Amino acid sequence: MNMTAVIMAGGRGERFWPKSRNTCPKQFLSLTADGDTMIQKTVKRLKKLVADEDIFVVTNAAYREIVEEQLPQIPRENILLEPCARNTAPCIAFAAAVINRKYDDAIMLVLPSDHLIGYENIYTKTLKKAAAAAEEGENLVTVGITPTYPETGYGYINFGEECGDAYAVERFVEKPDLATAKKYLASGNYLWNSGMFVWKTSSIMANIRRFMPEVYVGALKIGESFGTDSYEEVLVREFEAFPSESVDFGIMEKAENIYTIPGSFGWDDVGSWLAMERINETDDDKNYIEGDVIAVDSKRTTICGGKRLIAAVGTRDLIVVDTDDVLLVCSKNSTQDVKKVIAQLKEQERLELV
Amino acid sequence: MNMTAVIMAGGRGERFWPKSRNTCPKQFLSLTADGDTMIQKTVKRLKKLVADEDIFVVTNAAYREIVEEQLPQIPRENILLEPCARNTAPCIAFAAAVINRKYDDAIMLVLPSDHLIGYENIYTKTLKKAAAAAEEGENLVTVGITPTYPETGYGYINFGEECGDAYAVERFVEKPDLATAKKYLASGNYLWNSGMFVWKTSSIMANIRRFMPEVYVGALKIGESFGTDSYEEVLVREFEAFPSESVDFGIMEKAENIYTIPGSFGWDDVGSWLAMERINETDDDKNYIEGDVIAVDSKRTTICGGKRLIAAVGTRDLIVVDTDDVLLVCSKNSTQDVKKVIAQLKEQERLELV
Repeated sequence: MNMTAVIMAGGRGERFWPKSRNTCPKQFLSLTADGDTMIQKTVKRLKKLVADEDIFVVTNAAYREIVEEQLPQIPRENILLEPCARNTAPCIAFAAAVINRKYDDAIMLVLPSDHLIGYENIYTKTLKKAAAAAEEGENLVTVGITPTYPETGYGYINFGEECGDAYAVERFVEKPDLATAKKYLASGNYLWNSGMFVWKTSSIMANIRRFMPEVYVGALKIGESFGTDSYEEVLVREFEAFPSESVDFGIMEKAENIYTIPGSFGWDDVGSWLAMERINETDDDKNYIEGDVIAVDSKRTTICGGKRLIAAVGTRDLIVVDTDDVLLVCSKNSTQDVKKVIAQLKEQERLELV
Repeated sequence: MNMTAVIMAGGRGERFWPKSRNTCPKQFLSLTADGDTMIQKTVKRLKKLVADEDIFVVTNAAYREIVEEQLPQIPRENILLEPCARNTAPCIAFAAAVINRKYDDAIMLVLPSDHLIGYENIYTKTLKKAAAAAEEGENLVTVGITPTYPETGYGYINFGEECGDAYAVERFVEKPDLATAKKYLASGNYLWNSGMFVWKTSSIMANIRRFMPEVYVGALKIGESFGTDSYEEVLVREFEAFPSESVDFGIMEKAENIYTIPGSFGWDDVGSWLAMERINETDDDKNYIEGDVIAVDSKRTTICGGKRLIAAVGTRDLIVVDTDDVLLVCSKNSTQDVKKVIAQLKEQERLELV
């Protein structure tokens, strides 16, 4: 069965503000020394899994040019442009319906566009196992990450019975508190929910039909119009009518035949500026420093410089991100509060800075 | 006897980098909400003491235009331009020699250009008392500040016998450690050395003649040439030959007849960026914030914004100073280390940033 990939690239990447902006969110930024953007890395690591012409990118219509520029190897018609943001369930239904126009049925790897993978060989192997598991019946397969510490910022997957390489999923659980996260790790039956899914287009469409019938009908209409003159009109009308819903809540938490393949391949969700010191080299004082910077007695400081000299003197556990029009200075304990700045900017209608 | 003032304005203000630069040091910056620069405030508060035509400014030749622009009320010929930096003793000798060309003898208030005074009325009264004390014999009078806490960053004046409003100075002492500073305060015989001096031109010239005879001779030559065609040539030749020496070390620690007038008039030496929160209004979280700033959960943070938005998130005890070409992020515990950044920039020959 044909192997296709759907890269979800509609996110706003607010936690990487002010480098990540509405006009160019996180997945289109280079956050590592090699210079590739997050989405470029995502596509590159599919090399041994999916042919370029079977890679689909679903993104906001506003990012069409960025995607075309960053991913010239992807056929233009595979760039699926959402007229508005409706979360992952409509995004996936849209992509599945379009893929079904090309193939009667196909394996569909659904992948975030803004994560990092350290061990690409193991990643490839894991996705292949997931694809094999997804070929059975109407299985919906999620890739679970074997936890290495009791993270409280991720959702977890509770798994049960072993079925070949996969495990049956008992339930998905929300971000736990620390005590609960520790229990999860101790139990040996919980994985991190990575947001990577593998299924046949037929399987996910069957489940969308069952649990989100209005999205199913709309997605079919979009798929039918794909490649015709009415496509854009149908797309806008149907997509805007979709509810905003995640695939986790809308499908995965309700469906049967949910399986997980445990993976351990140096996955990093690059969830905030805190990631910079994990995914890049640091100096002896645990500083991650990029740009024109003079640091005097600074420790555990992340500095992403812009055009100007930055002098950091005696800083500790601090994040400094400089851009042409905005400077962020953020305590490492407060990275989640960057969103509050964005909220204030929206209130002030300073949308050019968001 | 005529009352004159000599404002020493040749400093580099390194501790206020990056706003203070070689091209425009601290004394020419506005650091308070009223918009006046430090030197403008210094001149304004002399209103009831000295006529404008008897106010002299000694500064580096590079700052002539800035002084002319900021102090249009001062006669051009009263702006005395040092061809190079030689610390305060040659600066004072130069000014005294020039004033002696105008008046046979005069009271000379020697004042830093970059301090703040909260209670100007009390300040005026204190300087008048100092002037009265300076009229006696060859008295050299220094204004001592009654300490309010055991500061370890200032030199102290140890005084003894009472002589009218003044006290005889026993000795000047260097910056003490905390234990010593506490002893000084407990003794009731120590004042902060403010760097303000009052004497007759004849008294200081007599002492310069005694303790720095080569400076005396050179200063006389400069004074004699003042107003003639040879002035600039003589000035450069003589001034460059002067040793670099402070008046404290070169004269005050050696001379007899040293007196101090204790003052308590809200003196602040505005010694570093830490001063901003003292000399300006702060918000409920003890932040001093100026410019286009969004602060989320920041406390005890000083932000001097530039042209861009600054977002401060969860910061504590931090100083952020933004300029067009340099950004400083400095822990409040490390303000003394700003000089190390400047030293590195000099090493790198990036003098445009110094």
